[in-house]
Amino acid sequence: MRQHHRSTRLFGSLLLVAAAGFSSVAAVPGGGSGVKESATATTPTPLGQVIPAPASADPGGSPYEINAKTRIRVGASRDAHRIGSYLADILRPSTGYSLKVTDDGGRDGIRLRLDSEDKSLGGEGYRLESKRGSVTITARKAAGLFYGVQTLRQQLPAAAEKKTKQKGPWLVAGGTIEDAPRFEHRGAMLDVSRHFFSVDKVKRYIDQMSLYKVNKLHLHLSDDQGWRIAIDSWPRLATYGGSTQVGGGKGGYYTKAQYKDIVRYAASRQLEVIPEIDMPGHTNAALASYAELNCDGVAPPLYTGTEVGFSSLCVNKGVTYDFVEDVIREIAALTPGKYIHIGGDEAHSTSHDDYVTFMNKVQPVVAEYGKTVIGWHQLTGATPAKGALAQYWGYDATGAAEREQVVNAAKKGTKLVLSPADRSYLDMKYDKNTPLGLSWAGYVSVERSYDWDPGTYLAGAPEDSIKGVEAELWSETLSTSAHIEYMAFPRLPGIAELGWSPASTHDWDTYKERLAEQGPRWDALGIGYYKAPEVPWPGK
Amino acid sequence: MRQHHRSTRLFGSLLLVAAAGFSSVAAVPGGGSGVKESATATTPTPLGQVIPAPASADPGGSPYEINAKTRIRVGASRDAHRIGSYLADILRPSTGYSLKVTDDGGRDGIRLRLDSEDKSLGGEGYRLESKRGSVTITARKAAGLFYGVQTLRQQLPAAAEKKTKQKGPWLVAGGTIEDAPRFEHRGAMLDVSRHFFSVDKVKRYIDQMSLYKVNKLHLHLSDDQGWRIAIDSWPRLATYGGSTQVGGGKGGYYTKAQYKDIVRYAASRQLEVIPEIDMPGHTNAALASYAELNCDGVAPPLYTGTEVGFSSLCVNKGVTYDFVEDVIREIAALTPGKYIHIGGDEAHSTSHDDYVTFMNKVQPVVAEYGKTVIGWHQLTGATPAKGALAQYWGYDATGAAEREQVVNAAKKGTKLVLSPADRSYLDMKYDKNTPLGLSWAGYVSVERSYDWDPGTYLAGAPEDSIKGVEAELWSETLSTSAHIEYMAFPRLPGIAELGWSPASTHDWDTYKERLAEQGPRWDALGIGYYKAPEVPWPGK
Repeated sequence: MRQHHRSTRLFGSLLLVAAAGFSSVAAVPGGGSGVKESATATTPTPLGQVIPAPASADPGGSPYEINAKTRIRVGASRDAHRIGSYLADILRPSTGYSLKVTDDGGRDGIRLRLDSEDKSLGGEGYRLESKRGSVTITARKAAGLFYGVQTLRQQLPAAAEKKTKQKGPWLVAGGTIEDAPRFEHRGAMLDVSRHFFSVDKVKRYIDQMSLYKVNKLHLHLSDDQGWRIAIDSWPRLATYGGSTQVGGGKGGYYTKAQYKDIVRYAASRQLEVIPEIDMPGHTNAALASYAELNCDGVAPPLYTGTEVGFSSLCVNKGVTYDFVEDVIREIAALTPGKYIHIGGDEAHSTSHDDYVTFMNKVQPVVAEYGKTVIGWHQLTGATPAKGALAQYWGYDATGAAEREQVVNAAKKGTKLVLSPADRSYLDMKYDKNTPLGLSWAGYVSVERSYDWDPGTYLAGAPEDSIKGVEAELWSETLSTSAHIEYMAFPRLPGIAELGWSPASTHDWDTYKERLAEQGPRWDALGIGYYKAPEVPWPGK
Repeated sequence: MRQHHRSTRLFGSLLLVAAAGFSSVAAVPGGGSGVKESATATTPTPLGQVIPAPASADPGGSPYEINAKTRIRVGASRDAHRIGSYLADILRPSTGYSLKVTDDGGRDGIRLRLDSEDKSLGGEGYRLESKRGSVTITARKAAGLFYGVQTLRQQLPAAAEKKTKQKGPWLVAGGTIEDAPRFEHRGAMLDVSRHFFSVDKVKRYIDQMSLYKVNKLHLHLSDDQGWRIAIDSWPRLATYGGSTQVGGGKGGYYTKAQYKDIVRYAASRQLEVIPEIDMPGHTNAALASYAELNCDGVAPPLYTGTEVGFSSLCVNKGVTYDFVEDVIREIAALTPGKYIHIGGDEAHSTSHDDYVTFMNKVQPVVAEYGKTVIGWHQLTGATPAKGALAQYWGYDATGAAEREQVVNAAKKGTKLVLSPADRSYLDMKYDKNTPLGLSWAGYVSVERSYDWDPGTYLAGAPEDSIKGVEAELWSETLSTSAHIEYMAFPRLPGIAELGWSPASTHDWDTYKERLAEQGPRWDALGIGYYKAPEVPWPGK
């Protein structure tokens, strides 16, 4: 009865979920509170007890149960069909049911409905209605349908995520969820430069972030230690500049076909890829590949250490801008998304004047190829282009002047993405005993990572200047999927919730209970997470 | 009062510690149970509540207190002087006292006495007597004195291990410990081949293992991925064969001076270095360095993966034995210890007959240079030389025939060192969420690692065939001191206790309480350990 007890506690404090929902449990066919052994298995996850917390959840009525006859009804839309198939692929192995995806009409089963007329739902919102006989997800666009499916997954038992047949029943609590995100930008960054990650590893992480309605995959494709994307006009960037990594291992790079494969796969999970080419600093891999990019015409050696701030493109050489334009042109052609990230952080070897000159020349090139600039927040020290986003990665030790520069830019209209290093940098150690990661921004516990409000974090910045949040995973110390998962879980879901859920749902005490219930899901999915001591994991 | 309560519980169940010891606490000057705030600080660690558990502890009488006037009295012995200085170096920063090391006579202070006549103490045993005014450690040899000092360290507050001045009092509970090890061989192995570890990192680990009276440092100096020791007659072994490591990083090797420095440092911590050159398999680094060592005369490329079992020295070539003799001669000359480890595991590319031929030829070479053979337990498939030790690394899945071969060798007189992979391999993951390590022998929790008896582990092997135990740290996934510490702590102390403490002290429930009290010591020492959930760490 432990789980039952815990759910009740959560219930009491999650204002959005009406207490009425619980009485419906007694009406579950074959379950009921009289049967002690099966009470846990047949008690569905309370409606809305998911991450990110939904904007509203109104529980009530009988639960819906998936059974052998369940069909996934998707209508005529190709997007709905694709998302229905995605859901069926997840649920078939665990339920053992055929879960035919069909455009046959019908009021029963799992129904995925696109309703482009329903303006109330917004571009990413959805409604999920669950009752005896059917669960219906309605959305205006594919994204909303996909997010509704993620919510549905979390309303099902954790065993639904397993790859082999499990015992049901497969209940979804009755009631209605209406949900839409707080912020437009809900990102996660993976640094594939310090250590290279194969396409399969990137896809694995994409699948994991999509569980929490993350919608931007920021790929840090170049840095001092490696260049990771093939550029036809400058081929040595990848073949030589990508040939090693931190620690001296063999590195790697994505061919254009591989990069496109990542972009496609991300899109199938409603993620937009944001490619980053970090400039003018963090460029040793490029400088090592082409001598002419260096002011002195001498190529430095490849670099496999972890220090920062020593490299710079040669701001006063014409060839630098040929290089930049070639790279941006080729990457823009591969990237359907709106943005190209041009870095701009830690250019400690570039004078201020040179930095401004450089950014004034490079930002228009991005626009020329139809893309919008994102830069690290140091970009606000130059003149951000119209529409450009600045990504704030400061932390408690960041100087007031630097912070004010960002706030002033926000007041003048530059939108901000927040990824404060001491909150959302997933590579920071949890505590002093964490064997991976760094700690220059301090230790970032799960609670610290979650417990801040993007809307009020940067004092003075207008709330409407906040475009969203991003969780960054730098890879100086990380080289495997196990490493990624240990650092990202359980912190990534917290940042994702900050990006999605209304501020009114924010509460560490109830969040940690919801987070704890994700543990069995990660077990089922094979995600090796850090069992943070401040989270009441089930069975502990 | 939490710590007080815990100590009481331990007390009740640790049979060797008489209940009388606790009443003495009330007599502590300036402490006493009436002063609540200072009760924890002024309650000394109960006598004998250390790791490894001592053979006997008889608490009673007033505690000893280190103060500003304390001298460390060592008599005329050079060894005692060295060990006294080592202790003073540890305690000076935290206590802020001068702790003069002196051979002045006197009955007070910290007294380190070598008494070569006291046969009752054994070659590694010691007696520690603590009372108002003095704590006296008596031993027959330097090793015992050093181990007595380790016990003394653990009887002091954890703050004594810090590098900056701390608040006292510095109390040692009153009473007498008489202690000697159960087994002669209490080893720890570090694999410096898969990833290379600098001399400083090795020394750091030596300091850590010496806390728990480990007395053998087994260095795995060669493997497929790297050769780590300079050999003058075959220089490319180190310069080429040592030039990389798992993952492709730059590797490294010890010069002869560096190796001797490690040997010297280990000796200062009463550790004997056992160098291992793994043969005839696990030799790709050597085969890549010298084409003539290969049967086909062609050198394979350097290897940076993690698979095993593909390489073999050419058993039927004369040059192979020139090579082996040169290597053994040079390593024997650098190594004051008794043993050379010749590996012999996983020689999957060597036929059985060739394996036997090889071992018959190589073992006498070791003897010729005055050393004794250690080999992995597969050596029992050939004919172990007289006096040779076989190191058993099997686990639950090891076949009965293989196990029986080892047991039969033990019955015929081959002594065994036990390092069962599913108990004492420190590189096995603790559980599925451990981000480092491997799991081919299953998960090895702290409890599983501790909860076995070397005396009865190998059914059929005579108890007197068991020379001791060893904790192995393979480094396919480990490349930093933080990695070493996360995997070794808290499991290494458990293996060390199995090697030292009488079987009668073995009890997980009391052990885990003692282990928990090591946490603050590791914090003070900067050891980043895994906070295993089954251990009741203080303050959790």
